[in-house]
Amino acid sequence: MKQSLTLIPTLREMPSDIEVKSHKMLLRAGFLRQSTSGVYSYLPLAKRVLNKLEKMISEEMEKLGAIEITLPSLQPKDILQHSFRFNEKDEEVLHLKDRNERQLILAPSHEEVMTQLMRDEIKSYKKLPITFYQIQSKFRDESRPRFGLLRSKEFLMKAAYSYHATEESLETTYLQMSEVYSNILSRLGLYYEVVDADTRSIGGLKAQEFIIASENGETTIAYSDESNYASNIEVAPVVSTYPSSEKPMNPLEKVETPQVKTIEEVCSFFTKEQTDCMKSIVFNVDGEFVVVLVRGDHQINPIKLRNVLKAHSLSLATEEEIQQLLGCTLGSIGPIKLPVNVKVVADLAIQSIRNGIAGANEDGYHYINVNPERDFAINSYEDIRYIQEGDPSPDGNGTIRLKKGIEVGHIRMSGTELTEKFNANFIDENGQSKPMYMGSFGLGISRLLAVMAEMYQDDHGFVWPKQFSPYDVHLIPVNINDEVQFDLASQLYHILTSYHFDVLFDDRDERAGVKFIDSDLIGLPVRVTIGKRASEGIVEVKIRRTGEIFEWAKEELIDRLNEYFRSH
Amino acid sequence: MKQSLTLIPTLREMPSDIEVKSHKMLLRAGFLRQSTSGVYSYLPLAKRVLNKLEKMISEEMEKLGAIEITLPSLQPKDILQHSFRFNEKDEEVLHLKDRNERQLILAPSHEEVMTQLMRDEIKSYKKLPITFYQIQSKFRDESRPRFGLLRSKEFLMKAAYSYHATEESLETTYLQMSEVYSNILSRLGLYYEVVDADTRSIGGLKAQEFIIASENGETTIAYSDESNYASNIEVAPVVSTYPSSEKPMNPLEKVETPQVKTIEEVCSFFTKEQTDCMKSIVFNVDGEFVVVLVRGDHQINPIKLRNVLKAHSLSLATEEEIQQLLGCTLGSIGPIKLPVNVKVVADLAIQSIRNGIAGANEDGYHYINVNPERDFAINSYEDIRYIQEGDPSPDGNGTIRLKKGIEVGHIRMSGTELTEKFNANFIDENGQSKPMYMGSFGLGISRLLAVMAEMYQDDHGFVWPKQFSPYDVHLIPVNINDEVQFDLASQLYHILTSYHFDVLFDDRDERAGVKFIDSDLIGLPVRVTIGKRASEGIVEVKIRRTGEIFEWAKEELIDRLNEYFRSH
Repeated sequence: MKQSLTLIPTLREMPSDIEVKSHKMLLRAGFLRQSTSGVYSYLPLAKRVLNKLEKMISEEMEKLGAIEITLPSLQPKDILQHSFRFNEKDEEVLHLKDRNERQLILAPSHEEVMTQLMRDEIKSYKKLPITFYQIQSKFRDESRPRFGLLRSKEFLMKAAYSYHATEESLETTYLQMSEVYSNILSRLGLYYEVVDADTRSIGGLKAQEFIIASENGETTIAYSDESNYASNIEVAPVVSTYPSSEKPMNPLEKVETPQVKTIEEVCSFFTKEQTDCMKSIVFNVDGEFVVVLVRGDHQINPIKLRNVLKAHSLSLATEEEIQQLLGCTLGSIGPIKLPVNVKVVADLAIQSIRNGIAGANEDGYHYINVNPERDFAINSYEDIRYIQEGDPSPDGNGTIRLKKGIEVGHIRMSGTELTEKFNANFIDENGQSKPMYMGSFGLGISRLLAVMAEMYQDDHGFVWPKQFSPYDVHLIPVNINDEVQFDLASQLYHILTSYHFDVLFDDRDERAGVKFIDSDLIGLPVRVTIGKRASEGIVEVKIRRTGEIFEWAKEELIDRLNEYFRSH
Repeated sequence: MKQSLTLIPTLREMPSDIEVKSHKMLLRAGFLRQSTSGVYSYLPLAKRVLNKLEKMISEEMEKLGAIEITLPSLQPKDILQHSFRFNEKDEEVLHLKDRNERQLILAPSHEEVMTQLMRDEIKSYKKLPITFYQIQSKFRDESRPRFGLLRSKEFLMKAAYSYHATEESLETTYLQMSEVYSNILSRLGLYYEVVDADTRSIGGLKAQEFIIASENGETTIAYSDESNYASNIEVAPVVSTYPSSEKPMNPLEKVETPQVKTIEEVCSFFTKEQTDCMKSIVFNVDGEFVVVLVRGDHQINPIKLRNVLKAHSLSLATEEEIQQLLGCTLGSIGPIKLPVNVKVVADLAIQSIRNGIAGANEDGYHYINVNPERDFAINSYEDIRYIQEGDPSPDGNGTIRLKKGIEVGHIRMSGTELTEKFNANFIDENGQSKPMYMGSFGLGISRLLAVMAEMYQDDHGFVWPKQFSPYDVHLIPVNINDEVQFDLASQLYHILTSYHFDVLFDDRDERAGVKFIDSDLIGLPVRVTIGKRASEGIVEVKIRRTGEIFEWAKEELIDRLNEYFRSH
């Protein structure tokens, strides 16, 4: 491709409001432009990378026996009635109406419409198992779409859905898909981790996520410093034990604490540790209020909380609700003397607090010498806090550390809950009607582009891996007005192309400096520069990744490039 | 692909409410399912055909030097302010809001967002001309989505947009694109016509459409029975001449005509011809009322009307507006004694009416002996009717005939009107800032699938052309429980696949009759049946298109199939 005929709008300066390294370079090197908030146009270079990603992913899917299908983006709103992941009020879902006032949504996922299709078209165990995949745009209304492709409203995904007669069959496909995802990420040269993930939102049996460590990630991984344990902190269980105290219980006392609200203020007021404090939060759980207690140094994990309470909906109570319920503000809530109909759920760590501090449900006051069971009733103790650094690893080996990561893939054994909701049944070998088992698998293709853009760059621009670079070779005549240089460049362009190299030919009438800066930004694996030694038939070859520079005769170019591209 | 592992839900019976032949067969042969009104899922076989179409179309685009890009479906609503084809009130456009109440649309076209990108990224004549293409879903809210893929709300298109420094350069690309479209349709074996199309809605210089004749088409083509003249009737000029009458003018007379409303009723009441009658219709043209006159046997062409009036918006006046303006109902409108501010625009044929009949703007009355100019003023005579069968061909050769067709492609020289609206300017060689010239080109990929589905079928099912068939060979062991048959079939499956034939292997435990009926429905070019002579190593080969049947030894199968697939 002649560079004059394509669009690569590289930037010398970067808009200062871009926070993410990958996004910054995609803009700077002319791969991407924002079209509207959270929505992007893929310019020609990005499109070439995406095409290579899609082709490779399709190959891997076909190897697994998955069948390609295309499901539509427009879906009737009522399909969400049966969804686990989304409901009709979900702010992530984009709604619209057609001219006949029919309520539609833009598919945030296709597992519902796929399951509907299965219900209608597959009746017999003879047609199971079956696995479908599609590569398509999905739409989610991100609340703060500011991380470029990592949080866009319209994004490209490979989704796969599998249906089975038995759980064993589902598990087989689940494990195969896990292997395929590992292959794909390895082929991309990405270092990933497979972590346990929440299954509740898909009503499922088992779920894992493929995470690429990155400070820009929205996912926090808890991992062991000694074993290979790793989990999304959303689900990592806490296995800490809390020995009960031998200290005697002192009498409960109510103390005036003007202006004392946060845990830090409480500790400093009483010169106590955070571990002596109880944090009390009111949740609205399926319409009923529940006071949730965790130790002052712990954080409530709403996903664990929802799972242990088997709640359909769970949200923080509003300030008004708290005022009405307890007659105090957010910072003064406590577990003592609650209205009779309010349950108390406490984290396991609360058990071992002796003579602790808690809010008094009265602004400006706290209780001290609070002892659970003695001073207030607890409906149940549960593991409801986030695991944190320093906690023992749940697998018994080592200590937990945290890091940020980007979720690029997920694999889920959804079981029968979705198929039951859709009545997606089949007749088994004994003539019995049963719900199918379902697996659900996703791989974020535009996210992979972002992850690669983050990983494959240096101070000067991108450093694309050979297999997924927009082009193989950047061919640059230093001065296109020098006839010898330009003729040799044109000649090499034709030869390289005929040997099936993808060549970007910089035929622009620009200064050499501009071309080299652009070339480093774009980051193709090999740069071939035709300069002063063109008359001798000598070209300069620079390997972008290593910075190595060679001078090769034009006659040896093809062989040497073939050698380079075949090697690892 | 083993048939047991994919989804081909063929139907024995057809839902009776399907009107269109192509759609019927796509449903019956298990290629397509409706997901919701006007929205379809492409099942595995359809997806394979689409993939082949996309690949071929991409090849043709690349040959032309067009660059692939991906523009988003979500667009800000205000982009329509600058659109020619759509406005914000357009019922075809699907609107939505994000959680921040930002108004968005689902792109019915991408020429606006592409032009915006050009404005932002291209500044110099050195970067022109440049042509982009993309293959993507577009969204339009069809009013009556009942023709399957021909009228779907979410459809697949190849769009291309080109930008130029001069009109000549635009014309060059326009002609090249025309040739490429011709190539594409020829490669698909489709008989197409290129007809003139309306340019006004895109503010353009020249526009043509590629039409496939079909009784299910929504486009009417006017063509000459003697020359190769063909045009969309939306724009075909009428070149009929209307000799003025020598008959004397009779005195104007108002006649009571109870219950007489339609032209047919008027003719029968007065025993006159339709050519003696004037049809009067009130239009709302940019907020002003205009009475439009055509002869009783003619139909008003609103596109011509809008163009001659240079109107931005044009719609029929409502019954209430007519009542208020003229004090009568729809069937009694006439050109005599109109309010002073109401213009009259008449078709050219009105000139020659002598002693005609017209409504009296009073229910239950008509005027007879109406003579234009004498009895009422006419602001202008224009060519504002649809051409019709029997009219002389506009090129002077032959007589016009009409037929229905499906628009599968369009090419448009849009000129500078859109780029001017977007300020998409470039600096020319003399340092002058000028608007770019733009070309806009579309090819309906899901429509092409529908057109092929209509053309390539017989009474038993599809008859896919070799190059665009979902698979090459349908391999069918008559009885999979016969070990000899199944072993030979399995052996041939591996051999054929290793020779790069795409094989659909019917490994289902079904009766032979069921398999053969399905095979005819699916319509792959070649069926290889392994039956009784399997033990001798003899297979039966049926050519779907011709119905020819051969018995070939397994050893000669590859050579003979290679020969067949290489031939035309």
